[in-house]
Amino acid sequence: MNLPYLEAMKFFTYEIDSTRPRLGVVQGEGGAFDVAELLKHSQAVENEDPIPQDLLSLIELPDQGESIMAAISAAPQAAKDKSQINLQSIVWRAPIIRPRRNVFCVGRNYKAHIIEGNLARGRNINDFPKAVEFFTKPPSTVRGHQSAVSHHQASTQKLDYEVELAIVIGKRGINIAEKDAMDHVFGYTIVNDITARDLQDLHGQWFKGKGLDGTCPMGPYVVPSKFIEQPHKLRIALSVNGEPRQDSNTADLLFSIPQIVSQLSNGMALEPGDVIATGTPSGVGLGLTPQKFLQPGDVITAYIESIGELTNTIGSGD
Amino acid sequence: MNLPYLEAMKFFTYEIDSTRPRLGVVQGEGGAFDVAELLKHSQAVENEDPIPQDLLSLIELPDQGESIMAAISAAPQAAKDKSQINLQSIVWRAPIIRPRRNVFCVGRNYKAHIIEGNLARGRNINDFPKAVEFFTKPPSTVRGHQSAVSHHQASTQKLDYEVELAIVIGKRGINIAEKDAMDHVFGYTIVNDITARDLQDLHGQWFKGKGLDGTCPMGPYVVPSKFIEQPHKLRIALSVNGEPRQDSNTADLLFSIPQIVSQLSNGMALEPGDVIATGTPSGVGLGLTPQKFLQPGDVITAYIESIGELTNTIGSGD
Repeated sequence: MNLPYLEAMKFFTYEIDSTRPRLGVVQGEGGAFDVAELLKHSQAVENEDPIPQDLLSLIELPDQGESIMAAISAAPQAAKDKSQINLQSIVWRAPIIRPRRNVFCVGRNYKAHIIEGNLARGRNINDFPKAVEFFTKPPSTVRGHQSAVSHHQASTQKLDYEVELAIVIGKRGINIAEKDAMDHVFGYTIVNDITARDLQDLHGQWFKGKGLDGTCPMGPYVVPSKFIEQPHKLRIALSVNGEPRQDSNTADLLFSIPQIVSQLSNGMALEPGDVIATGTPSGVGLGLTPQKFLQPGDVITAYIESIGELTNTIGSGD
Repeated sequence: MNLPYLEAMKFFTYEIDSTRPRLGVVQGEGGAFDVAELLKHSQAVENEDPIPQDLLSLIELPDQGESIMAAISAAPQAAKDKSQINLQSIVWRAPIIRPRRNVFCVGRNYKAHIIEGNLARGRNINDFPKAVEFFTKPPSTVRGHQSAVSHHQASTQKLDYEVELAIVIGKRGINIAEKDAMDHVFGYTIVNDITARDLQDLHGQWFKGKGLDGTCPMGPYVVPSKFIEQPHKLRIALSVNGEPRQDSNTADLLFSIPQIVSQLSNGMALEPGDVIATGTPSGVGLGLTPQKFLQPGDVITAYIESIGELTNTIGSGD
């Protein structure tokens, strides 16, 4: 994939002073800018062009935001000066605050994680999935970078973390062939698929253990796919209170991004703005000896190369 | 529960001449009316009151539509004359056209259906769920009464039906006790949880086999809970081309409506407009000897006492 811009861009959603959420962009080392302000003060975008107010609107433009990205890239210094954001003083929201459908998730997609799960549950160590295992997390689970996630202590005694590379769909499509799958990907973000292990097992299907309020921190950035040349060669890691827990690479994905997109779109159209979390590597609390589950005050940092760090704390209370 | 109205009401969503979807109501034997037109021509509703344009807006009113229902009940004959609908000439839409979250579904919730599934899959006949098994169907599966459902023959060779009583949530709530659960139910409708059995098994988790486009016909009516005194004593049945396949009673639910609402709301707030399908009785195609799956041209009629009949055809093609 060619890189027509000098610097990579990362999109984010933020608030200042509890105003309505706004769309921001980080441009390489050049700083962070409010997209609407930047374009308003630029000559690069024509007056009649719509300026997207949020990331979903940008993704849904007929060109999937291509001309907006070109305009951002060409913005003059004067426009940048007028639209600069101090990332230290914002409230981070999830890049897509409330997806229009549940977040699509993939289970058991890194070999070492499958083995640790089989061992923890007393299963055959070689029980591997034959096809992608999909489940969902409702839109009400989605939260932003730096938000507090409830400990849910009235509901679970086994709250666990899972760092995952998530795909954001750009282009509608059904029955997508693997060779065409990447054309449907707008970009990538980080998801922490926080899971109540006891509920996951008790309720048979995984949905209940995956669906507690606030248990899908997402962000901080969505990086358009044109800026990530090799999504299957990204370091993916997670720490709790600075202690390394997960550290792997998307090269170890059992089912690749094209396989996931193709299988999910089988008989079911993917829609712009759909989020698909691609599974977590080994090192979850369930798989440690002794097991370690999340406690109030814990600080979780999920990292993916070329995207950034997603940090959240576990709150007290239910 | 008291019945302050002379006649039960059933709400539905419809179109005429491909205009925007509209909210309709059936009043006992009195006929069918367009809600906005009926209220516009009534003295019963004060001018400043908002007239809901769709069922979700009605449910989200602070009184969950109580005053609207009173106004409908009190509408004079002149207003009825001006707002009458001929049900033979409308296009039916799902009562809630596109839920804001995936439809919540319950698996394995009628004893005889659990046994037929265990037998069909060579499992222990006494493998019963210990807690409610939840999964979801995306909003893109939802269709109306009389719509054609794709045969999805490129995706599945085992398309199957499942008639289910579905709950529509009226009042937001989290960690709802069983004794309070019924206060959160706005009403009831019928769902046909059409399922690709081969994908359900192949993909481990049930989501993929349950998520194909158009596989959640819903309706035709949502009946407010005040008009269904005993939701656990409703005949529930389904036929294919007039041949009876499922015929049971909601009295046979393994987990009751209060248990489902309470367990689902554990750590996860229920929202007005959420739809929860409560599981299907025995008689699905998977459980028949020999098995019988849906074919193009099949006409499926799902029936639940006090709600009505939901009829859909299987189309040809993918």
